[in-house]
Amino acid sequence: MNHCALCRPEKETVLWQDGRCRVILLNDPDYPGFCRVVWREHVKEMTDLSETERAHLMSVVFVVERVIRELLRPDKINLASLGNQVPHLHWHVIPRFTGDAHFPDPVWAARNRETTREGNQAEVPLERMKQRLYDALK
Amino acid sequence: MNHCALCRPEKETVLWQDGRCRVILLNDPDYPGFCRVVWREHVKEMTDLSETERAHLMSVVFVVERVIRELLRPDKINLASLGNQVPHLHWHVIPRFTGDAHFPDPVWAARNRETTREGNQAEVPLERMKQRLYDALK
Repeated sequence: MNHCALCRPEKETVLWQDGRCRVILLNDPDYPGFCRVVWREHVKEMTDLSETERAHLMSVVFVVERVIRELLRPDKINLASLGNQVPHLHWHVIPRFTGDAHFPDPVWAARNRETTREGNQAEVPLERMKQRLYDALK
Repeated sequence: MNHCALCRPEKETVLWQDGRCRVILLNDPDYPGFCRVVWREHVKEMTDLSETERAHLMSVVFVVERVIRELLRPDKINLASLGNQVPHLHWHVIPRFTGDAHFPDPVWAARNRETTREGNQAEVPLERMKQRLYDALK
């Protein structure tokens, strides 16, 4: 039996999906707008995909980056595919702001400050994000 | 005057380059084989590149991933484009091993253990990496 949390997701906020991958919005109080692009199949590394699959996944990642930039105007975008704990291909697309909890360090580093962004998830224009993704990826 | 450290590099070990980007090998005692793919021009985000430029840069990143996997057999590959401190496009391609300093956490998290990998940079087959990159990217 497969116990991978990304193969058997629970309570995800899915912004967009097709047969190969899905875009989800995390509920991270420090990082409103933090999205993940998750490959549907349980594949470990980008170079385990075919060239066509890789291009598809990256095109979705970059559309997510573009939509986040348009709607949230972050100071920087962070992209990462790590998967040490969950070796199932997924990309983090993280809008970073100079006043966020870890800036200018990565979100996985020690926290640099407390933030008062709690509850700001409401600032994320969920329906507009979904619409922009749908328009860009149809 | 441009003070960007990636525009005016010093003492880099360049494994491969063309007119658009270069692959460098870091000298990180914790992470032998840790490479960066650096875009030549001072560009901040992936979505500031054209689609063709983006595809070129990612194709180089994935060739680096493939060569690292072939030659070093890591347990996992980590890919990241962050640039909060140096907003000049560069990709980290990091071979991860279950016994490395931070596994299973990201390399930017708190260290999980001391390692005795110091000096293991000598284990990285520099000339074979260069040759494989050259063959794959010519």
